[in-house]
Amino acid sequence: MPDLVQYEDASAEVRAVYDDIKQTRGVPDVNNFWKALATHPPTLKRTWESLKDVMAPGTLDPVTKEMLYLAVSITNGCGYCIASHGAAARKAGMTEEMWGELLAVVGMANETNKLAFALQVPIDPQFQGKGSKA
Amino acid sequence: MPDLVQYEDASAEVRAVYDDIKQTRGVPDVNNFWKALATHPPTLKRTWESLKDVMAPGTLDPVTKEMLYLAVSITNGCGYCIASHGAAARKAGMTEEMWGELLAVVGMANETNKLAFALQVPIDPQFQGKGSKA
Amino acid sequence: MPDLVQYEDASAEVRAVYDDIKQTRGVPDVNNFWKALATHPPTLKRTWESLKDVMAPGTLDPVTKEMLYLAVSITNGCGYCIASHGAAARKAGMTEEMWGELLAVVGMANETNKLAFALQVPIDPQFQGKGSKA
Amino acid sequence: MPDLVQYEDASAEVRAVYDDIKQTRGVPDVNNFWKALATHPPTLKRTWESLKDVMAPGTLDPVTKEMLYLAVSITNGCGYCIASHGAAARKAGMTEEMWGELLAVVGMANETNKLAFALQVPIDPQFQGKGSKA
Amino acid sequence: MPDLVQYEDASAEVRAVYDDIKQTRGVPDVNNFWKALATHPPTLKRTWESLKDVMAPGTLDPVTKEMLYLAVSITNGCGYCIASHGAAARKAGMTEEMWGELLAVVGMANETNKLAFALQVPIDPQFQGKGSKA
Amino acid sequence: MPDLVQYEDASAEVRAVYDDIKQTRGVPDVNNFWKALATHPPTLKRTWESLKDVMAPGTLDPVTKEMLYLAVSITNGCGYCIASHGAAARKAGMTEEMWGELLAVVGMANETNKLAFALQVPIDPQFQGKGSKA
Repeated sequence: MPDLVQYEDASAEVRAVYDDIKQTRGVPDVNNFWKALATHPPTLKRTWESLKDVMAPGTLDPVTKEMLYLAVSITNGCGYCIASHGAAARKAGMTEEMWGELLAVVGMANETNKLAFALQVPIDPQFQGKGSKA
Repeated sequence: MPDLVQYEDASAEVRAVYDDIKQTRGVPDVNNFWKALATHPPTLKRTWESLKDVMAPGTLDPVTKEMLYLAVSITNGCGYCIASHGAAARKAGMTEEMWGELLAVVGMANETNKLAFALQVPIDPQFQGKGSKA
Repeated sequence: MPDLVQYEDASAEVRAVYDDIKQTRGVPDVNNFWKALATHPPTLKRTWESLKDVMAPGTLDPVTKEMLYLAVSITNGCGYCIASHGAAARKAGMTEEMWGELLAVVGMANETNKLAFALQVPIDPQFQGKGSKA
Repeated sequence: MPDLVQYEDASAEVRAVYDDIKQTRGVPDVNNFWKALATHPPTLKRTWESLKDVMAPGTLDPVTKEMLYLAVSITNGCGYCIASHGAAARKAGMTEEMWGELLAVVGMANETNKLAFALQVPIDPQFQGKGSKA
Repeated sequence: MPDLVQYEDASAEVRAVYDDIKQTRGVPDVNNFWKALATHPPTLKRTWESLKDVMAPGTLDPVTKEMLYLAVSITNGCGYCIASHGAAARKAGMTEEMWGELLAVVGMANETNKLAFALQVPIDPQFQGKGSKA
Repeated sequence: MPDLVQYEDASAEVRAVYDDIKQTRGVPDVNNFWKALATHPPTLKRTWESLKDVMAPGTLDPVTKEMLYLAVSITNGCGYCIASHGAAARKAGMTEEMWGELLAVVGMANETNKLAFALQVPIDPQFQGKGSKA
């Protein structure tokens, strides 16, 4: 188990981040992820500020953002991330049926990605340069 | 470049799949991905039938499904898949702003996934067994 | 731990899949993988039918198919998959010596794959377009 | 394009490796992969000696070894490796039908690996400790 | 090719980031990576500010940071990243010999990582909880 | 848990490798990784000899090599490798602050790698062919 920095042992700099996480999320304590990151305070601060910014409601609603996060975490095989963002997605409104469909899409996408690699498929002319613009 | 099976050279079995793809998607021809898969007809048929089923509208709408597909393809680094499903997502309604937010979430998720691996963070008790149920 | 759907709690639709798995494989109960997938019955059914089809004896014999499956699972770092398909491969005839050689090939392939990425090696003219056809 | 060390420009140490590759494989020249590796002679030598050893016929025949190599390369998305080992597998006897079945297994394995990650399936008691022994 | 936002077409917000990149790095123009990111200005700004912060000299010198960046990029198979950070590493002092040794370490680490997955090696008691603290 | 070959049960061939590891590293016993690899003696011997060669001091000092190894292991999500090479890096001189900076670089590199994939950024002319030479 990694070192986990508890609130009572934390520096003022770390406590300020913990306080912001608790207030933003309305939770009584921060997750282990943040307690582990706190062993390097600059990375704790930078990561939290980026994440708070990126996951805030925008054009995409919070449940869609959490599901995208899950799709990445499943593809990377990150157990901690699936557990914590699975809980966050559920809290944001993901139902059992939505999770089932997410699973189906993520599974198929991983299959077809590998088939596309295997066959080294040339990009169709009509898709050229379209991946990066909406 | 891989072998690409054109409609005029395809067997009846392959043509039947091509016809179904064209009708389902309302397109005049199938993408190179399918033409490359057609070198192994059973895999062409099975993959198309699975994909048609999985990507059909359900609890999740088509644009959400295409964005999940993109999140996986970006994480796997599959250029063909980003190009073809980027186009499909746009057709289904993804705007430039949605694409920008998707990028931000996928980027951050890949960063934090690796931090979670690095720190070997233990799963918080409240997340135990929650990743898999909504 | 995820929700696992036991036979006695399963719907008729799920039981039909479980029965087919048990009969096809000659086992008294299905693995945890299927019990976890059963939380989304359409994905359970589609995945089993694809897998049954793909892993059935063909030009490649079952032990070769299981070893290919293991090569993928090792490369993806999927512990569950290595454990369950390691058992399946052994049942299909993989010996200790075959496993040792598989390990050696998979290890070397992962090393040389990364060296090829690092050096951004251009494809030799004689290999152009040959990856996808036998 | 990376630096490629041609035979005529190579040191005696590099030429000795090139000669061994050409003799072992019965080819008139070495592939670009080796010419790129030759920019660091110790890595060229060590990699070739390991690969020669690992890919030599053993309990597994050469075509099975090449197919395992391809399964890894497809999973890693290494275009160069798929092209060069696709050619090697074909030379060793892989038919179009075998390639099609390999594709099907590799695609499915990537799908089910991700589903196993997503569901964080606990290893069944009967598979405990069996992944690593044949 | 993705949309690339050139300086003359950029908004004031984007120009301010470009100016900071050019000044920090002492270069006459920004790389394509930043021009592509500029299609989503908040992600451009956040990514540049994080990167500037993370890659600044600290306890680790710039060439070590660039080599760590390369080790990740090779493992992920990101061609663009290998090219641009290969150039940055060289500018920061990486010699041909250092690059050769980096390649050797990255290749071996990828091989042994996969062997550790394959064998599902239990963590030795003396390494428990030591991965995350120096 | 995999089979672990203890010294007292090992063949002469395996014992010779164990003895070399213990002497080279100045440790009383070998790690579980080697005991697991010993189930296939040729892979044990080849892997140890390669690793000993690659990790020996060269132009890069041991702590830099161990940090590169860690960067790969974090990117691959290999828990065992992070634990054992985290300990080795610390023994070689990696401080808490160096580990924190390593984490920051590895996290950012994984984020920007995925953004580069997503945007399919074309390689800038000045970086062409520079990734592979120092």
